[in-house]
Amino acid sequence: MNLLDSLALEHTSKIVLLVLDGLGDLPNAARRGLTPLEAARTPHLDAIAAESALGRLVPVAPGVTPGSGPGHLGLFGYDPLTHLVGRGVLEALGAGIELKPGDVAARANFCTLDGAGIVTDRRAGRIPSETCAQLVAKLAAEVKSIEDVSLLLQAGKGHRFVAVLRGLGLGGAVSDADPHREGKPVPAARALGPGAAHEKTARIVNAFVQRAGALLRSESPANGLLLRGLSERPSFPGYRERFKLRAVAIAAYPMYRGVASLAGMDLVVPAGERAADAVAAAEREWAAHDYLFLHLKGTDMAGEDGDFDAKVAVLEEVDAALPRLLALAPDVLCITGDHSTPVPMKGHSWHPVPALVRSPVCFADGHPRFHEKACRAGSLGTLASKDLIAVLLANAGRLDKYGA
Amino acid sequence: MNLLDSLALEHTSKIVLLVLDGLGDLPNAARRGLTPLEAARTPHLDAIAAESALGRLVPVAPGVTPGSGPGHLGLFGYDPLTHLVGRGVLEALGAGIELKPGDVAARANFCTLDGAGIVTDRRAGRIPSETCAQLVAKLAAEVKSIEDVSLLLQAGKGHRFVAVLRGLGLGGAVSDADPHREGKPVPAARALGPGAAHEKTARIVNAFVQRAGALLRSESPANGLLLRGLSERPSFPGYRERFKLRAVAIAAYPMYRGVASLAGMDLVVPAGERAADAVAAAEREWAAHDYLFLHLKGTDMAGEDGDFDAKVAVLEEVDAALPRLLALAPDVLCITGDHSTPVPMKGHSWHPVPALVRSPVCFADGHPRFHEKACRAGSLGTLASKDLIAVLLANAGRLDKYGA
Repeated sequence: MNLLDSLALEHTSKIVLLVLDGLGDLPNAARRGLTPLEAARTPHLDAIAAESALGRLVPVAPGVTPGSGPGHLGLFGYDPLTHLVGRGVLEALGAGIELKPGDVAARANFCTLDGAGIVTDRRAGRIPSETCAQLVAKLAAEVKSIEDVSLLLQAGKGHRFVAVLRGLGLGGAVSDADPHREGKPVPAARALGPGAAHEKTARIVNAFVQRAGALLRSESPANGLLLRGLSERPSFPGYRERFKLRAVAIAAYPMYRGVASLAGMDLVVPAGERAADAVAAAEREWAAHDYLFLHLKGTDMAGEDGDFDAKVAVLEEVDAALPRLLALAPDVLCITGDHSTPVPMKGHSWHPVPALVRSPVCFADGHPRFHEKACRAGSLGTLASKDLIAVLLANAGRLDKYGA
Repeated sequence: MNLLDSLALEHTSKIVLLVLDGLGDLPNAARRGLTPLEAARTPHLDAIAAESALGRLVPVAPGVTPGSGPGHLGLFGYDPLTHLVGRGVLEALGAGIELKPGDVAARANFCTLDGAGIVTDRRAGRIPSETCAQLVAKLAAEVKSIEDVSLLLQAGKGHRFVAVLRGLGLGGAVSDADPHREGKPVPAARALGPGAAHEKTARIVNAFVQRAGALLRSESPANGLLLRGLSERPSFPGYRERFKLRAVAIAAYPMYRGVASLAGMDLVVPAGERAADAVAAAEREWAAHDYLFLHLKGTDMAGEDGDFDAKVAVLEEVDAALPRLLALAPDVLCITGDHSTPVPMKGHSWHPVPALVRSPVCFADGHPRFHEKACRAGSLGTLASKDLIAVLLANAGRLDKYGA
């Protein structure tokens, strides 16, 4: 057991982690060098800032831009460099599939094969999502299982779908059934690790590709399929076990509920994507939980779109919902992001993410606003995201002293 | 392969790392508490600072003062605690000897022995460098090889020289042929590691000490020799392999080219020691390289001399050369040092080193000057030197996202 887990105490205090996805940003030359957090009118956030310790979180390591999986695992207190989540598993979680321990998931594509079995289009002409759904339904009806392994298929956008193998003795260390470029045949999947589990998975995958190929033979252009990113749902010790916390994830998007499920959190779908919806859900979950993770996606979407005004608008909408969240009187409130998504970059970045922690013993910096520049010199310092949970537990009175 | 290497992408962007050796300093009581960087008139550096992320680098670990080898290995992205370079190897690199993989190098001294073979003066009365050169030439002429191993000898200052063993099957884990104090005989070198390679090296070293002793018998006072710091040239994965960078080191002093050679950089000797010479060399190397490391020694020399005005003068000379460097339009420019050499200490120190990183996405702090105090609260934060390369690669668009 690691240090933190060994120090965790039972307590009645409550922690709220409000994650504004992609929160961090850059000074914007077109906006007098302001960031969206600086430009937004956020009176409630300002009041919280003055009572908070400010600081910054480094999601994975200096210079390293995280995806959503590593970004959130870090915030939850799981080192994203040692708690690995495969591509297929993340895709399945993002598609809302509730993976069970031992499940192996893959990202899948329909593709076009020529008469000799050569891949001529890895995306099958980007077939419409409706066609994809029909083909997936056909495969699901015809190939329910192979050996003693069930197949779960879920259609995605365009040519994409997710395949999950559920059964005993499967392993995720299996190579892709995907040549990764046109002009080559689909390679057989093969075990990449020792032991029968990976061999079994490879065998099932290859049988599935064969049987699906036969079922798709008369289709055009989607007469074949590719599977990649095969990976096993990892099994991490959960929040109850590690931190003695009854945790709940309130997130409109399946991906974030999925990652939270890996930490053993209860999962709640709010009524909508807005901050007020998440806060309403928090009100309902309050009595039954000690740790409430609220995920809001709008900041990241605005950043990805390169839309400064939209990011400002989301922040102001979040601000408007804060009084109701404060009315719940969390003992510890943390507001931060899983990574930066700067408007000028239109994508995730490596920049440290602004963070605030508010509690009666947080060492309030007394700074009148919460933004990237204020956070550079705050009392929280610059932490690895994975260390945030320790600070939250400490502020909640939930960590024992180390040593006498 | 480590995380960073696995994320490195091919790109056309260019990175300049300008190292002002021993850059960091302390507030100087005799100069109204200013550091040399504060006191210097540096209009071009000031302009760069305003567009840069400021921060500080910790060369090895808090409180640890690095030598030139670890200081630069860190800046290059090689953890100096795990990428070890032996004393003999560093001495040989500093002497300008181009070591090949497998070479074993040693620091050597002429010494004085009495009739019973007892060391009476470990420095042979500090003979003049000319005498040392004559004796080294004599040894080199008479002892070209032992068994199948070639000997390369190069005279240094006073009683010092460097000995390199070149041949197959050598190992560097060999004890010193040096009692480390007077009044004792020269101990035989012995293998410190398992395997025939270290045994072979010890045998060659002992044979060399014997044969040299015979050749020096009639000399006075330098009638013996000592060898220490035996070490094998390490073989690290280079910049091309690790980071997909075509890298060049532009350095007037052999030591810094030598350490850069361990990272697989191309090596260029500028026409002189001044900043303008290094920049002129950078202009010539621009087209053929993606990463240009420019080393300037003057700041360190002034610090070692305890000469505040000289350090200021070097900084102002560097400042004058910056417009030509900027005219090359590097995508990422980093200016920092390998360690601090504070004027009041007249030597290397452990203090974090000021650093700036300038790129369109660096998170410019907008600070009007670049100095130790401004860097304490910059957006770059305080990083381990070994993590700098990740930030440079990220700013250059040369790092893939980690995880989905």
